[in-house]
This record gives sequence, C-alpha cells and structure tokens, in this order.
Amino acid sequence: MSYKAPLKDMLFVMNELAALSTINALPGCEDATADTAEAVLEENAKFCGSVVAPLNYASDKDPSFWHDGQVSTAKGFKEAFKSFAEAGWQGVQHPQEFGGQGLPKLVATPCIEMLNAASISFALVALLSDGAIEALLTAGSDAQKTTYLEPLISGKWTGTMNLTEPQAGSDLAAVRTRAVPQGDGTFKVFGTKIFITYGEHDMAENIVHLVLARTPDAPAGVKGISLFIVPKFLVNADGSLGARNDAHCVSIEHKLGIKASPTAVLQFGDHGGAIGTLVGEENRGLEYMFIMMNAARFGVGLQGIGLAERSYQQAVAFAKDRMQSRDLAGSAGPVAIIAHPDVRRMLMSMRSQIEAARALAYVGAGISDIAHHHPEAATRAANLAVYEYLVPVIKGWATEMSQDVTRDGVQVHGGMGFIEETGAAQHYRDAKILTIYEGTTAIQANDLVGRKTVRDGGAVANGIIAQVRATEAELAAMDGADFAAIHRQLAEGSAALEAVVAYVAANMKSDIKAVFAGSVPYLRLAGIVLGGWQMARAAIVAQGKLDAGAGDAAFYRAKIGTARFFADHMLSQASGLRSAIIDGSAGVLALGVDDF
Amino acid sequence: MSYKAPLKDMLFVMNELAALSTINALPGCEDATADTAEAVLEENAKFCGSVVAPLNYASDKDPSFWHDGQVSTAKGFKEAFKSFAEAGWQGVQHPQEFGGQGLPKLVATPCIEMLNAASISFALVALLSDGAIEALLTAGSDAQKTTYLEPLISGKWTGTMNLTEPQAGSDLAAVRTRAVPQGDGTFKVFGTKIFITYGEHDMAENIVHLVLARTPDAPAGVKGISLFIVPKFLVNADGSLGARNDAHCVSIEHKLGIKASPTAVLQFGDHGGAIGTLVGEENRGLEYMFIMMNAARFGVGLQGIGLAERSYQQAVAFAKDRMQSRDLAGSAGPVAIIAHPDVRRMLMSMRSQIEAARALAYVGAGISDIAHHHPEAATRAANLAVYEYLVPVIKGWATEMSQDVTRDGVQVHGGMGFIEETGAAQHYRDAKILTIYEGTTAIQANDLVGRKTVRDGGAVANGIIAQVRATEAELAAMDGADFAAIHRQLAEGSAALEAVVAYVAANMKSDIKAVFAGSVPYLRLAGIVLGGWQMARAAIVAQGKLDAGAGDAAFYRAKIGTARFFADHMLSQASGLRSAIIDGSAGVLALGVDDF
Repeated sequence: MSYKAPLKDMLFVMNELAALSTINALPGCEDATADTAEAVLEENAKFCGSVVAPLNYASDKDPSFWHDGQVSTAKGFKEAFKSFAEAGWQGVQHPQEFGGQGLPKLVATPCIEMLNAASISFALVALLSDGAIEALLTAGSDAQKTTYLEPLISGKWTGTMNLTEPQAGSDLAAVRTRAVPQGDGTFKVFGTKIFITYGEHDMAENIVHLVLARTPDAPAGVKGISLFIVPKFLVNADGSLGARNDAHCVSIEHKLGIKASPTAVLQFGDHGGAIGTLVGEENRGLEYMFIMMNAARFGVGLQGIGLAERSYQQAVAFAKDRMQSRDLAGSAGPVAIIAHPDVRRMLMSMRSQIEAARALAYVGAGISDIAHHHPEAATRAANLAVYEYLVPVIKGWATEMSQDVTRDGVQVHGGMGFIEETGAAQHYRDAKILTIYEGTTAIQANDLVGRKTVRDGGAVANGIIAQVRATEAELAAMDGADFAAIHRQLAEGSAALEAVVAYVAANMKSDIKAVFAGSVPYLRLAGIVLGGWQMARAAIVAQGKLDAGAGDAAFYRAKIGTARFFADHMLSQASGLRSAIIDGSAGVLALGVDDF
Repeated sequence: MSYKAPLKDMLFVMNELAALSTINALPGCEDATADTAEAVLEENAKFCGSVVAPLNYASDKDPSFWHDGQVSTAKGFKEAFKSFAEAGWQGVQHPQEFGGQGLPKLVATPCIEMLNAASISFALVALLSDGAIEALLTAGSDAQKTTYLEPLISGKWTGTMNLTEPQAGSDLAAVRTRAVPQGDGTFKVFGTKIFITYGEHDMAENIVHLVLARTPDAPAGVKGISLFIVPKFLVNADGSLGARNDAHCVSIEHKLGIKASPTAVLQFGDHGGAIGTLVGEENRGLEYMFIMMNAARFGVGLQGIGLAERSYQQAVAFAKDRMQSRDLAGSAGPVAIIAHPDVRRMLMSMRSQIEAARALAYVGAGISDIAHHHPEAATRAANLAVYEYLVPVIKGWATEMSQDVTRDGVQVHGGMGFIEETGAAQHYRDAKILTIYEGTTAIQANDLVGRKTVRDGGAVANGIIAQVRATEAELAAMDGADFAAIHRQLAEGSAALEAVVAYVAANMKSDIKAVFAGSVPYLRLAGIVLGGWQMARAAIVAQGKLDAGAGDAAFYRAKIGTARFFADHMLSQASGLRSAIIDGSAGVLALGVDDF
C-alpha cells in the first residue's frame, strides 16, 4: 500500500501539454524553470511517499476522535504536518511576500495531487488553508494580511471554511448565523456550522475560521451574507495568541470515509459571542467565499486524481503479484492476474481516465497562471474565462471518475478487495465525499450550464471546441490504426459536445428544467471530450518523440496505447450522452412527485 | 429507513411480463394461482418489512463477532430467523415432499428480492441454504436427502458452500482440501476454506457444510474435485445431533459491508479429521457445485435488485422531505429537492434500472419454471438454454447496477449521505460484494462469452434478439413521442447486440484475448438491451391498459415514462459499448506488463 508519485507522467504533462516553458516566460513566474519544477516535484514526491503515505491506512483504522471539545487527530498526523510546514510545502503557490515560494499554480498542482494520493484525510487540512489564504489575499485588509497570512502560509496555523448550517445545506441563501457589531470594529458571531473540515484539531497552534454570517440589517438571501475571520484563539497586536475565542467543537461526524479528517460541528457564541472581524465589505461575503470555493473546487478535482492514482497503483501491484488461473492463450500453471484480459481492461480504464484527468487539470492550472500573470489584459481575461469553464468540469468529472476508478480498484482485488485490511476498500469509501463537498456534482453542473455556458451563449465553450478541432486536424495527418481510431472518436465527441452546447444555450429560456435535466450528463460529456482531447494531444507528442528517436520509447508507446483505450472506451460514450441530454429530459421529468 | 415492498410493480411484472398464467398452467405449478401468488407476496412483504428490515442498520453498526470459535450474530437475527423458518419462508420454492411449499421460482423470486431489500446480511443465510438444498436435491443420495433436506427446508439447520481456499481464489482447479476414505463409507476431510458466508453462527442448531475436496487418487485440476457433506454436528441415524465435528471457525473477516453476515475462515480436520460423506459420484463435485452456483448466482442478481430498491426508497423519502433551494422555474421559498431536475434524474436512473432488472430477472424465473416443468422435452431444453444465457447477465448486470444505484443513493442525500447514521452509505458499502462473490462480473462475462455464446455459435443469443425484434415491430405500431424514442433506442441496442454476438462467435478461435477483452462490456450491453426490451414490453402493456381504461392510470403512465427514461439514458449507451467491444481490444491489450 505504498505510493510512488508518477513523476514521469506528471513531468510529461507539465512540460509537453501544459507548456511550462510558456508559463515560466510570464512575469513573476521566472523562477519556475524546468529544472526547478522538476526538483520541487521530486522533493515533494519523496516527502509524500515517505512521510504521509504510510499514515493513510492506520489513520483510517484509528481515526481522529473528539473528547471534551478537543479533537485528537490520528497518530502521526501532528508530526507529519509539522514536517510539511517546516519544509515549506503549504507555501508552494503563495506569495513570497508572506513567506511562500511564489511558484505558479502549474507547479503547485502536481504537489497537491501527490499529497492527496498520499492521504486525502491529511491533505484536507492544507487544502482548507489554501482556500483561506486565497480569500485573505483577495479581500483581507492590510492588517488582516499581516496578522494571518504568514502563520497560515508557514503552516503554523490552519484555516477553515464555514458555510453549511443544519437547515441550509448547499443553499447559502438560508444562512442564519448572526454577526453583531460591537462598535469597536469587531463583531460577535452566533450560530451553528456543520460539516466543517478540520474545524477542530491538534495539529496547529491556532485555527482561522472563515465564517459566513449576517449582520443585523443585512438583506435576505445571498446578498446579505458577509465573511468574517473568527480565530480559535484571539490574536494580540504582536501576533501572539490571546484568549480562547467562543467557537467550540461540539462533536465530529461518524463518516463513510476520510475518517482521519475531523468533520466538526462548530458552535459560535454560546458563551457570550465569538469575536470576529469583517473581511472586505459587508454583504460581499459570498463573492469572497467563491474565491475560496473556486480554488478549493480545483483542489478537490486534484483529490479525485490523486486518490484514483493511489487506488490504481495498489490494483496494479496486486494484479502483478496475485497468481490465479491459467492464461487464456494457454499456460501450464497459474499466471499473474494482470494477464487476464478483463483485469487488464479495468487497469487500462483506471489508468486512461487518471491520465486524461491529470492532463486536463494541469493544462487548466497553466491557463490559470496565464490568466493571472500575462501582461495583456485581454489575454488574461480570455484565459480566465477558459479556466472558469474548466473548473466545474475538472471538479465534477475527476471526482466522479475517482468513484469509478476506486470501484474498479476494489474489483481487481476480488474477494480480498472487500476485506478492510487490504486497503482497497478505504479508497472506495474515501472517494464518495469528493462528489459532494465543495459543491455536489449537480452544483458543478449548474455552474457549467448557467454561468459558464448560457451567460456567454456558449462562446467560451465553442472557442475550446475550435481548439479540439485543430487537434483533430493534426490527428488526420497521422498514420496508423491507433491515430485513426483516436481521430474518429474525438471527432464524434467534439460534434456531440458542440451540439449539446448549442442545445443548452438555445433552450435555457424556453425550457430551463429540460436543460438542467441534462446538466450532469453535459458535465460528463465535457469531461470525456476535453480529457480525450488532452490524451490525443499527448499521443501526438509521444509519436513525435518516437519519430525523433527520443529516449524512453516504452513510455511514449504506452501513452499512445492509453490514448487509444480512452478513445474506444470513453470517448465512444459521447453519442449516448448526447441522446441523454438532448432527448432525455422527457424521461427525467415524466413523473409527478406522487408517482415516486 | 423503512422498507415497503414494491408489490404493485412486482405483481405487474409477474402477471404481465413473466406471464404467471402460463406458468401456473404447467404440471406441478397449479397451486400458484394469481390469488395465491399475490397472497404469498403480501405476507412476505409484511414479514420482511416488519421483522427483518428494522434490523438492517443496527446489525451493521453492531455486527456479528467471533469469540473462542463461536460467532454471535447481530442482535435480533436469531429470533428473526426463527420466525422466518416457522413461517415457512425458507421452503417457498422447495418440494412439498420435504416440507416445502413447492411454488414456482417465479413466485419465490419476489420473496427473495424482498428479503434482500430488508437485509442483505440476513438474507444470505437463506440464500446459502437454498443452494445447499438444490445441490442435495440433484445429487444427494436418498439417505442424504432424508437426513438433511427437511431440516434445511424447515430452517432448523442452514447450509454453506465451501469453495475458496487461500491460495486458489476463484480458480477451483487449485483446490487442495483432502478427503480421505475411512473404509466405512465416510471420509476424513482436511483443509482450510476462506470466505465462507455464515460458516459459523448461532441462528440454527446445525450447519451443513458442502465442501469441495480431493480424494487421494483424484486427477489434477477441476476434474478431480468431489463434493462432501461435512455437518457442524454429526447426525445420528434418527436425525438427532451427535458429536461436534472437526470443522471449526478460526476467524471472521473485517469487511467493507454486509458486516452482519459472518464471513468465516473454516479449518477442517485440525483435530483428527472432519467426518464427511460424498455427495453423488467422486470427481463430479464441480458439476454439482455449479448447480448451487447457478441458483446462487441468480439469487445474487436478486440481491442487487433488492438492495438497489432499498437505496432508492430511502433516496426518494429524503428527496421528498428535504427542503432546499428555490425551484428553478421560480418559487418563493425552498422546495423539496425532488423538484430539482438533477435529483429527479438520479431518482429516475435508479428507478428505471431497478425496474428493468426486476423485469428481466422475473421473466428469467418464469423461463426457468418452463425449463423444469413443461411436458415437452424440446420446450424444456430450449427454455433452459435461454435461462442459462440470462443467468450471468442477471447476476453481472443487476449487481453492477446496484453499485451505480447505491452511489446515486448516497449522492441524493448530499453531505448527509456521507454520515453513517443516515444509512445510505451502508447500501453503498454492502453493494460492493455483489459483483465479487458467486463469481466476479468478469467470471459471469466469461461464462456468457464461452459457454453461453460461443459454444452454440450465438444461436440462443440470436433467438432472444429475434424476440426483441418482435417487440420492436409492436413498438413501430404505437403512437407518440415516447414510443418512438423507445423504438429507436431499442432498435439501435438490438443491432449493437447482434453485431457483438456475431463478433464474439467469429473471433473466439482466432483472437481469444481480444474477445475476452470485451467480455464485461458485452455483458453490460446484453443487460441494457434485454432490460430495455422488458421495459419496452412493460410500456406496451401499460399503454394497452390505459387505452382499455383500466384502473391505476398513474401507475401505467409512470411505467411508460420510466421506460422512456431507460431508452434515452441507458439504451443509448449501446453504440458506445459496441465500439468498446469491437474496436476496443487494441487499447485493452496495448501495454506490456512492465508498462504498468
């Protein structure tokens, strides 16, 4: 159950598909040379593989637990987080001004994938801190930045996001937590928040809760929500810790997975009021929270990829080791089960989906870097629009993929997979949260339909499809059955996606329910086609390397074979999804509520 | 988390699709009148809903446990099994001669679905007994039948299947357990068996282990395996219990799901030898075991359907109850989430797949009854061939379906789904075993390809496809958009299945690995097309009832809407699967072992 980071594929994607050489030519990104990036990835791989990965199984078996308002985290987590912080891993993508390394998102992205492959439960504490840092960088006052950013970026403190309340679920308009101004610039916060990841723990000196709440005269709905910093311990002017704040963990949840990550119910203000300070302007909390959410959503997509990779590695190891039954083509005795075609099919399904999602995510990270660092405003804006289109696809598709992959990961193990000691089942349990938190797949799909497709009449989507077509033209010029199959399937996929984008844009006003009845299938279609596009690009690059006689031919040949698998087994689903979206709403909406 | 059997749909399928009126016209099936069948189902529904279903959640939380060679089952299981036995439920489908009710499989089938919906873990003890009863009825001596059948059928004792050994997994050729003849007609059995469901428990007076083992001079491989009865307590000539046999439970597994069902490691013969008697002839054990396996495989398919139904009912209840977010088409306040299109899509996906799998399984049960009871040998043989084609499809497809459905079942609940107390996660965990035990999905698919398709050159498969075409001709004569969509998608599905059957039959000799690389996708395609066929038949019947002004119009309209959903969302996957099978082997087999 060890984890070895797939550095070869990560570097291939970073350099060849996401074009690090373009990114490190941008102002502010110059430090991210190919050599530096490679060195960072190698060091991170060592850390994740040797320090974090060994904790994953035991921390599921003996997870975090609550006692008297405290949470004791799983054995080894505290020490591992100290090492993580000291090595500077929390700060990879954050500004040097506040102690970070200031590297591009493209370099941070594989690091986040690796940490999550090592342990989703552990990585969550860092992911939540990343979100809090992003929000404070964007909307915090200078004083808030001075007080909070350095300890968060150094890993001395950690951050949380406090959105959900018992009665509200994903509906932030229903938030009831109150924030009452005290006349001294501070507020007293009262309310209950649930599902707060790392809302209480013993891995850092302080916890910086970012809390959505309503001021007394705020308008109803989402336009009356403000964002507050409510630290676990108040912070003195010199940065030292003051009194314990009135924010207490009353319980943690008993969950299907990610058991080592404490999921807290937090009670604010039961003993007089929790002291908080306003972030940015009143009533703009949702906007700031979306900054955290978008960063976090991309990060959850990476969780899906990392977890799927971990599950895949374990399945491969088992399939190579386990001897059972003769080879179909004839062998005297039993062979390793990786020789059996259906085991091979499952492994290829896992591998191809992971590689496709990884490529799409890293390419997205590079686009985000361009969106933030390019000197020309128009280029920044155009890339930001593409990135924002990709975020729900990466989050939604990569996390659903992780559930398919971890399911196959158990299945490859046969009966042993169902035994908890094997460890494969943990991944299957852990994966189930990923399509739920930071916005369910349906919420990602709503975002994709509403903000990302309908709002601009499908312009950004069609711009991306035009790029897919350019790749198809390259494929048309390639030789051999593999490229012919990849070309045919990608062309059918992009045609389906184009038709669906047109359908969504055209029917939103006249039949909104029909359009949203197909929103998740649309997200899935976008994931498959754009992931398949990246695999096609990868195959073209690989063929070029082979033609040029570059080293590591086996890697390039495997990449082409994996792209071929993705085309015939995944891209081939596009036409069915097109039917489900364009023809399928009648069935979705056929029944009355009482018919269920 | 209650369970209410879907009697209306069960009776519809039994009467209208599986044609109970044809079955109860067969000799030996006359007792199964429509009224009797309905009464049996209603009583069974009451029992399962009130006695067994309430145990399911608690028995997962505080499952069976091992101590000093004994297994204490979960609270309430012992009493519930006593009630089950006393009410005669173990004997529904078994011969009256041995105390059973002698009802057709078509009537027993919904009862088994209900018991599994109530609690998979509980139902397993009955499922294993059914298998042992089948094997003894077929291959047992008169003395064995006299001794063992009545107590098994009455539920006084229970049965087990002992196949798997640590080194052998699914490869029965590698079985090493030894059976040494004692010269008095008995054997001493020595060996270790793992994954023995209900291999030890406290719910019955005795446990009848059916054990695969090798006699001293047996040939190697599967042709040297014999089947033995090795009871936990030896049985005296008068049927009373004798000495404790040397068959001991040394541990039970710590599993992902079905935790209340003890999965035993059994040690035979560590204290001198476990006394067993041979069933049937030496070296024919595998053949007899397949009798149990085929019955059990069909039963596991029903487990998938029952579990999926339970998950669906829970999701529907939550979706009707949970108020969150406004209606897309506009509402003042929050609405029940069943109003949201993607929640509706998930519920329809769950519902339509359950109904399709139920219809296919019950129709299969009816075909099995014809195969066993029809006066004409040719008709029996023809129906047996169709039933045997359907068994791997029902087992493989319905169990994979149950994993899709229980995943959606968690997803509908959002964050609450991930909390174990909600109960939705248990179904997701429980479902994962169903594609593994009694032969993994790959093993079902191998059976479908090898024995059921290639052996007769696709004749049985094509005979079934011809029946699908007859339904398509009926669909062509129906009015309206729903029937047009169903017709179009079913026709595309049957064309894909026909092409795949031809491909499989044609390429087995020349390229066996390529054919088996597509075996699981072929099984899935067969499930979707044949399930879609049953939904189309159901829709035609429903329209006929509506046209005739029959009561319960809402039920019939919902059936047509559900069939429409299945067509656009499930049957539409057929063309992609066809590509994956016919073009997809190159990708499956592209990599060398070292490339992984």
